[in-house]
Amino acid sequence: MTRDITFAVLGTGGIGRRTLEVSQYKDGITPVAACDRNGIAVDRDGLDVDELLDATEGNIASEEAYEVGDGVESAGDATGSDGGPLTDGGEVAADADGGVKQHGAGAGVVASAQAEPTRSPIQDVIDEAVAAGIDAVLLALPNLEHDFVPNTAERFADAGYDGVLVDVLKRSRVIGTLDEREETFADAGMTFVCGAGATPGFLTGAAALAAQSFVEVESVDIWWGVGLKSGYEDNRGTVREDIAHLDGYDVETAREMSEAEIEALVDEHDGRFEFHDMEHADDVLLERAGVCDAADVSVGGVLDVRSDEKPVTTTVEVTGRTFDGETATNTFELGDDTSMEANVNGPALGYVRRGVAMNRDGRTGVFGPAELMPGF
Amino acid sequence: MTRDITFAVLGTGGIGRRTLEVSQYKDGITPVAACDRNGIAVDRDGLDVDELLDATEGNIASEEAYEVGDGVESAGDATGSDGGPLTDGGEVAADADGGVKQHGAGAGVVASAQAEPTRSPIQDVIDEAVAAGIDAVLLALPNLEHDFVPNTAERFADAGYDGVLVDVLKRSRVIGTLDEREETFADAGMTFVCGAGATPGFLTGAAALAAQSFVEVESVDIWWGVGLKSGYEDNRGTVREDIAHLDGYDVETAREMSEAEIEALVDEHDGRFEFHDMEHADDVLLERAGVCDAADVSVGGVLDVRSDEKPVTTTVEVTGRTFDGETATNTFELGDDTSMEANVNGPALGYVRRGVAMNRDGRTGVFGPAELMPGF
Repeated sequence: MTRDITFAVLGTGGIGRRTLEVSQYKDGITPVAACDRNGIAVDRDGLDVDELLDATEGNIASEEAYEVGDGVESAGDATGSDGGPLTDGGEVAADADGGVKQHGAGAGVVASAQAEPTRSPIQDVIDEAVAAGIDAVLLALPNLEHDFVPNTAERFADAGYDGVLVDVLKRSRVIGTLDEREETFADAGMTFVCGAGATPGFLTGAAALAAQSFVEVESVDIWWGVGLKSGYEDNRGTVREDIAHLDGYDVETAREMSEAEIEALVDEHDGRFEFHDMEHADDVLLERAGVCDAADVSVGGVLDVRSDEKPVTTTVEVTGRTFDGETATNTFELGDDTSMEANVNGPALGYVRRGVAMNRDGRTGVFGPAELMPGF
Repeated sequence: MTRDITFAVLGTGGIGRRTLEVSQYKDGITPVAACDRNGIAVDRDGLDVDELLDATEGNIASEEAYEVGDGVESAGDATGSDGGPLTDGGEVAADADGGVKQHGAGAGVVASAQAEPTRSPIQDVIDEAVAAGIDAVLLALPNLEHDFVPNTAERFADAGYDGVLVDVLKRSRVIGTLDEREETFADAGMTFVCGAGATPGFLTGAAALAAQSFVEVESVDIWWGVGLKSGYEDNRGTVREDIAHLDGYDVETAREMSEAEIEALVDEHDGRFEFHDMEHADDVLLERAGVCDAADVSVGGVLDVRSDEKPVTTTVEVTGRTFDGETATNTFELGDDTSMEANVNGPALGYVRRGVAMNRDGRTGVFGPAELMPGF
């Protein structure tokens, strides 16, 4: 009854690759395009995900590759912070060997037999999304430049794309930047689901649902644990984004840190970082949905890059007042054996499905995860 | 930006009345009609809920009134099991004093200054819903006759109602009966959200969301606790429905029990009933949403009608396998101080909002709560 969904992945770092992998377990949702900084793979009948993952696994993880940039998961490059042509001309420049098919370590997606090198991977995905009518595009990009995802989304709108964009952004301030473009997205017929990873995303949705017992929500406390030993190489962009939340660091300083500086910081902390009062968009996304004030939401957690065990159990606590005058706390808790990747990519695809259903009904604009839950 | 929502309540027993009460705490959702067996209250500008509740509170709770039937919360009457004209002619007959305004104990909704007596309360609500374009109607009716809610919904469709119906039904088998009518509902332009109370409803949605970590769900275990001392009189219909789940009882035997027999059973159990493997529609609703097989869902719980403390903590456990091969359990837990009423009526209104948003987008048909979550 439900039509199948096609989707593309913009960015084949940890999140992008794992989303492709998870989609293999799902019915009726088919990846048809994927790109990184240097290449794009397209197959309208569905990518051969195994081949793509096998060919690219581990080939973007070298320190040098991270610094000079191969994969879009490299924050320093993909976000255009290198002053390259991305933010000017709207294209990602290929630093090295552009146009020449690469293989082996550092090659990125072009190591796949399905991929072709390109100097304009984002534009190529946009063109393909429009030409093939791809239902949804997952923006699996780091976002240390706050307007990178909004600007990229605007390029989709300008090109006449009328499908769904889903991103896994984290920072509260990005939502405002998206909101400024809501009319552009709506005019194009696009449905943008923002902040659709784990937190914000999965846990934001859980908070919105947990709030249903209450007529007034007093606080939402999100406390996450991530053990990222085996996923470390794959998720350096995410780790860099997290470092920007530490006391004494911000987006700019984190972006400018060399890989060696990050490793030194990891050593200094014995691989374990604790975060409090993070600027995660759960706050504004819950406020948008009318659940509570952004100020009542707190996000923190513990990241351990030297263990795959979660250092703490990921928990969402929603405290509120019921119509009959009681105060209580509803709790959502993730099993410790669910990895960060599982908790980002399952929900991301879940929100893709919901976004596509809305888009097919003509519901366009910008939506956070909490707005896709039962209304508060 | 979002247009206000108007809604009607069919049935002003515990669930109906408490939903009216909870709606007072919500923005942009206005009750405009409510009925029980003997009367209907309508105000297109919004009912005076305080007056309605004050006038009707406690006036339907006498044992005699329950047995011979005043309020639609009385299962023996509202479902037409008394062999009265409901199932034949489609109307609820007023047994006593029909057409004469009643006041005081036993009068039901007509004790309110806003209400008028009627011999056809359901048809009157249908007519008003069509005439006034009421956005949503909450069917807060007991449903011991499994086709009562589906048949009532069909009457809305036949009358040309093109809005949203939301019910709080419990039994799995009712979903099939609704599905058989899906085309009728869709043709009329109706959006039917079924099983939108606590369980199924709130907890079904929580299970669907909790499943997002997994690529395969192995089991969903719902275990609820309800302390219903002060809410007992208000929720006799619900208690009777629960008794039908006990070993040795079924829908028919529970329906035919006299009030005295129920009290004797309550005494025998010291007010506390434990339920296992209940036929709650969470199973088929999760299967509809593709989350798991109905057979993998179990629902049970403990009801204590002599305490307002929950005898056990209400918990949803979703166990599954992640894409990276781990098995884990995600847990959703309701605070012990959230009453059954809070956990039914908040979600019911939440699903009303979601249903209205879908209906306004032209999404018609039959949907369970899990289908309103991020797709699995």
